[in-house]
Amino acid sequence: MNSLEPVFGSLKKAQAQLAREHRQKKDKALKAAMTAIDAARGAILRANEADLAKARSRGMKEALVDRLFLDEQRIDGILEGLATVIRLEDPIGRVKAGWTLPNGLFVEQVTVPLGVAAIIYESRPNVTVDAFSLAYKAGCAILLRGSSAALESNRALVKAIKQGLEQDGIPDAVSLADSGTREEVDEILNARGYIDVVLPRGGRDLIRRVVDHARVPVIETGAGNCHIFVEKSADLKNAMDIIENAKLQKPGACNSVETLLVDRAIVFSLMRQLAPRVAGKMELRCDIDSHMASAENGVPPGLVLKGAWSEDWETEFLDTILAVKTVESLDEAIDHINYYGTGHSEAILTRNLPAAEEFCRRVDAACVYVNASTRFTDGGEFGFGAELGISTQKFHARGPMGLEALTTIQYRITGQGQIRP
Amino acid sequence: MNSLEPVFGSLKKAQAQLAREHRQKKDKALKAAMTAIDAARGAILRANEADLAKARSRGMKEALVDRLFLDEQRIDGILEGLATVIRLEDPIGRVKAGWTLPNGLFVEQVTVPLGVAAIIYESRPNVTVDAFSLAYKAGCAILLRGSSAALESNRALVKAIKQGLEQDGIPDAVSLADSGTREEVDEILNARGYIDVVLPRGGRDLIRRVVDHARVPVIETGAGNCHIFVEKSADLKNAMDIIENAKLQKPGACNSVETLLVDRAIVFSLMRQLAPRVAGKMELRCDIDSHMASAENGVPPGLVLKGAWSEDWETEFLDTILAVKTVESLDEAIDHINYYGTGHSEAILTRNLPAAEEFCRRVDAACVYVNASTRFTDGGEFGFGAELGISTQKFHARGPMGLEALTTIQYRITGQGQIRP
Repeated sequence: MNSLEPVFGSLKKAQAQLAREHRQKKDKALKAAMTAIDAARGAILRANEADLAKARSRGMKEALVDRLFLDEQRIDGILEGLATVIRLEDPIGRVKAGWTLPNGLFVEQVTVPLGVAAIIYESRPNVTVDAFSLAYKAGCAILLRGSSAALESNRALVKAIKQGLEQDGIPDAVSLADSGTREEVDEILNARGYIDVVLPRGGRDLIRRVVDHARVPVIETGAGNCHIFVEKSADLKNAMDIIENAKLQKPGACNSVETLLVDRAIVFSLMRQLAPRVAGKMELRCDIDSHMASAENGVPPGLVLKGAWSEDWETEFLDTILAVKTVESLDEAIDHINYYGTGHSEAILTRNLPAAEEFCRRVDAACVYVNASTRFTDGGEFGFGAELGISTQKFHARGPMGLEALTTIQYRITGQGQIRP
Repeated sequence: MNSLEPVFGSLKKAQAQLAREHRQKKDKALKAAMTAIDAARGAILRANEADLAKARSRGMKEALVDRLFLDEQRIDGILEGLATVIRLEDPIGRVKAGWTLPNGLFVEQVTVPLGVAAIIYESRPNVTVDAFSLAYKAGCAILLRGSSAALESNRALVKAIKQGLEQDGIPDAVSLADSGTREEVDEILNARGYIDVVLPRGGRDLIRRVVDHARVPVIETGAGNCHIFVEKSADLKNAMDIIENAKLQKPGACNSVETLLVDRAIVFSLMRQLAPRVAGKMELRCDIDSHMASAENGVPPGLVLKGAWSEDWETEFLDTILAVKTVESLDEAIDHINYYGTGHSEAILTRNLPAAEEFCRRVDAACVYVNASTRFTDGGEFGFGAELGISTQKFHARGPMGLEALTTIQYRITGQGQIRP
């Protein structure tokens, strides 16, 4: 039984040291890591080949093998990601608020690093470098727990990072948990006093397991059962562009639309145009009214048109499948979204101002859209430079997370001998 | 077995309704609750007498009985607290940030209620009203789980509040969990999807139990093993005023000092003056150097002077006891604080600017003080109007918590048909 306890201890110590470094030193360390990864391309690619060979010999699907796969171009992408993080402003040492009390005490709220982060993730090796660089920039040490499928790739990447940090930085601020056991994950999830936040990044099962078992704080990410509601005053041409984009631009993304809600007043005019337009591109799973509307002039050639089961309302298809439901009112649309949604990204298409306002006020989700595609929920799109994931919880962080999610605040109070009367 | 499930459901429904109300309506409801409590003074005091009689018959200590105790004056205090909350700005609907993306999407970060809160607390009945009013103002429904000792008082208070809200408000936004069983607490701690945050307010055991068992988010409050470090350049007269204030002004408060750290260079000059000054007011538990210094001219009359055990460094005395330790350097003081401290309030007394800066940067606590008493860590003192408690965790909220701790943010994105290319 290898315990992670010594690793936790050295991460905590390294974090205390890292917390004191200012941006220039942190950026210099990130540059050193960049140079070292660049220099280790050969070793990284050889390690990746070993992972790929093992994965294929165990019969891993090619789509998943592709996630694991690294080549020169993907390493270029990883290095570009690092360069982006270097360019980001330091999230630490920002004064968020400050004021003077009647007794003369000067109070400031200053951002400080959250502490030691752990990330539990699936097979993409680029996450290893992304997570390290974001954490380091935010003054946080990080424990990386990747999937066993990517073990050799991750070992080679972390080795290179540590070599870079040996030159110029704090090598103990990053560590790879590589035993591959479940016990290791449990140890991370129970490491109160050592780990300040756990970020699960991956499929629904991984996230659920982490949330259910963690005794340390978790930021839930990922699950997106997103909706578009076409209100009766919507511009239908506009609506069809947005629906197509939100479903097809990247069907496997968490911010893709899964269920289309349509006001009864326009269900015929919308679906009779949408059905032929999406034929051959997506499958529609319709309630009775939207089904009739879609098939009004016969089922358009090439369209996969099915009846919707109630299960479809709660399914994140992550595929070219769109559930369609007719609703009687804005109220019903909002209730449906708040019941079946996962609090990720929800859109209303409308030209009616009160409807737009009410939708925004009442829908309980990280991101609410008026007349735009849900696909914009993304740290890069929002202008954060890099993202740690998209939080679907309300606690600590919500929506696309930039570096700020890895910070907390400290009150600094300066006096001249004040005592409390 | 009474399950809380129907209560969770009605709280959640009421919260969705409350989230839509603007400040005028919320304040009107709080005023109605105030009027109803005022009108129910007789019933509340009778209920409180029943609690007191039961407590005394069970042999509760008078100090604890006093916490339970209500009279006209204490009810006045409760009503004043409500009036303060009514005067507070609405924490909801504030735009924390907003910007326009290159594609014209207008992004705003708007504060929204966190959702349904639960508070698990000990015997003070005023917490019942404070917690309700803060939650209501923040658009949150609240489940109150007080101690069984205060059961009748809490029932009478919540009955009055609900009567007020029947007139003018949403009565289901508040509920009292009054079965008094452990199962009830466990049900609250496991109510994922219903309870958005649990606030334990009380002693160390209560907080530990909640933190260990909760599967819903918790804000840890309370434990304060606070330090004052007297650096060698400190003004000693000033230092003694601050030490005395931080220990004696309210010894049972979480922000009171528990351990004094003194630089070896000044331990004799400080302790030889401090010892006679605090004689008869506090007990000193000293390491060998501070002990010798305190007794240099013989133990001052009336001074309780003891040797410190290592356990004293980790004890939150909450009493007129001060542990004293001599340190060799600023470094040793910071290391001691980061090892033994609970991340609450830590002070340095110094005239040396680099020492003050280094102390603030390296001490890992919610509040760090330069030349002031730790006793100022308090929502009221900080100017928040009212406080939910003092968070000693780094996640979501840190330090004195005002209404903002019961909020989260929502991104609102307004477009004119934008799709993601």
